[in-house]
Amino acid sequence: MIINEVIRQIQQAENIALITHVQPDGDAIGSCLALANFLDTLGKKVTLYCQDKVPPVLEFLRGHNRFIDSMKDNAVYDLSIAVDCSDEGRMGTCKPAFVAGKVTINIDHHVSNTFYADINLVDTSAAATGEIIFRIGMELIHNINKDAAEALYTAISTDTGSFSYGNTTSQSYRIAAQLVDCGVDIERITTILYKTNRIERIRLLGRALNSLALYENNKIAIIEITREDLNDTGAMESEIENMVNYAKNISGVEIGILIKETEDGTVKASFRSNGRIDVSKLAGRFGGGGHHAASGASLLMDINKAKEEILSAAREMIGA
Amino acid sequence: MIINEVIRQIQQAENIALITHVQPDGDAIGSCLALANFLDTLGKKVTLYCQDKVPPVLEFLRGHNRFIDSMKDNAVYDLSIAVDCSDEGRMGTCKPAFVAGKVTINIDHHVSNTFYADINLVDTSAAATGEIIFRIGMELIHNINKDAAEALYTAISTDTGSFSYGNTTSQSYRIAAQLVDCGVDIERITTILYKTNRIERIRLLGRALNSLALYENNKIAIIEITREDLNDTGAMESEIENMVNYAKNISGVEIGILIKETEDGTVKASFRSNGRIDVSKLAGRFGGGGHHAASGASLLMDINKAKEEILSAAREMIGA
Repeated sequence: MIINEVIRQIQQAENIALITHVQPDGDAIGSCLALANFLDTLGKKVTLYCQDKVPPVLEFLRGHNRFIDSMKDNAVYDLSIAVDCSDEGRMGTCKPAFVAGKVTINIDHHVSNTFYADINLVDTSAAATGEIIFRIGMELIHNINKDAAEALYTAISTDTGSFSYGNTTSQSYRIAAQLVDCGVDIERITTILYKTNRIERIRLLGRALNSLALYENNKIAIIEITREDLNDTGAMESEIENMVNYAKNISGVEIGILIKETEDGTVKASFRSNGRIDVSKLAGRFGGGGHHAASGASLLMDINKAKEEILSAAREMIGA
Repeated sequence: MIINEVIRQIQQAENIALITHVQPDGDAIGSCLALANFLDTLGKKVTLYCQDKVPPVLEFLRGHNRFIDSMKDNAVYDLSIAVDCSDEGRMGTCKPAFVAGKVTINIDHHVSNTFYADINLVDTSAAATGEIIFRIGMELIHNINKDAAEALYTAISTDTGSFSYGNTTSQSYRIAAQLVDCGVDIERITTILYKTNRIERIRLLGRALNSLALYENNKIAIIEITREDLNDTGAMESEIENMVNYAKNISGVEIGILIKETEDGTVKASFRSNGRIDVSKLAGRFGGGGHHAASGASLLMDINKAKEEILSAAREMIGA
């Protein structure tokens, strides 16, 4: 079992680097902090790396301020562990800390993982890397404390859309149950993660919904967000995240699209499919990419022209 | 153990009535259908009662069309079981079917339950009545089939806000895990329950968010929905449900309020608290009621006057 080799390497090492991916999400940060917590308990010297800042919404997690964004000069690690990184490029500026490990481990759940480390613990049946870290914790220290449990709960909850996405398994629920028994305050965490909006975001959402337009017998839904919308409402770009789902989640819609005007007057588009259509192909038309159900692209043109081109391509995709 | 007595009574009975509450939700319908499924398996004759129609969103559950809204003349039952009803009044027009039972059982999880039956299986630690029905199923038939599992998953998921509310326990997650092992299609069900909106609802949400107004340093948030909003968008009254949460879930808000103009030109108000304020008291000012964190009232005045009065009372509540 690869997990036993991972445990053995951790037990043998003294000086350990943990590296997670750029633009970190709940699974990246939660998994890293939980693993760091286990290593702290074992008395290891742990350094945490992430190129980008921890999102404000995750600042409730203990240890969130331990991440540094680039390697100290000439640091050497007995062991470097990449967490939730499907390939080395995902580490961004922190890749040197991974390379500096005498032994390297890759712990991840993405199907696109490239098996780039000495030891690759990749479980694509896990809904979140947090599930794999949970198993490591049970082997390594047996007794998971509340801080680590809340970090892992955050990892799994965010990657499963609060246990609602199709990637959720009975294992996800079983681990959640054990984490709750370790002291997770569900109400506090879910309020922070899902039920706290800045008024600016809600004002932007109102604008976004008003822009919603349907085409081709409601099979295509497009939301537009202009610079004016962002400026007038005071919302941040990051607060646009997930708004494309309001387009996707309408009865009958096959392609949900969000078009966002960027600061330089060009456009970023997000595409979501409800199953039949492969929106990675739609994104590909504009030099973008992604997956069957979720993709994106940048268009070097103004928002009106971009909308026209996207709508035309989307119409072709649905066979209109 | 009361549950053993419930099992014994079910085993002895042949002709059984199940009654759930008016304006049924996912827990009411899901719990009833799962219990009916167990009783079918045992070869019992089962009649399902509910005063009001099964909400369209729950029509994917097998057996949803088995409910009748009033008792057949002079029916007599060996056993009548009230499901998810905190008191007899909750059965509405179906109460006679409960009274017609030679033996009566009350299965519920509400703290306000009045213990009105011969046998009262009330577990207030259960997040949903579905959790109690699950335990009965495990005792009664051991092997829960996919239909019953999906009914119970729906019951528990809807009463816990997809496993995110403070009422969720490790037991909720453990039961969900077992239900998934019984064949629940999580993606299909959560898409139906949470990710399918009519365009009319989304248009109304856009209008509702545009009406959002904040007062007293953002401690009070009010959303207004007029008849014009409903008429212009074509949304149904039932689609307003939960929109008050957009007001409540804004950072800093202590009282979230939704004011809805009714067909006769008066007003229905919903109040939500983020903890400190007891909004049952706010509702009480207008002859309404509810709980600490969620309440409502009807105001026999026009919407502008109602908003003024509500805002004034809310200001007093927060000590402004």
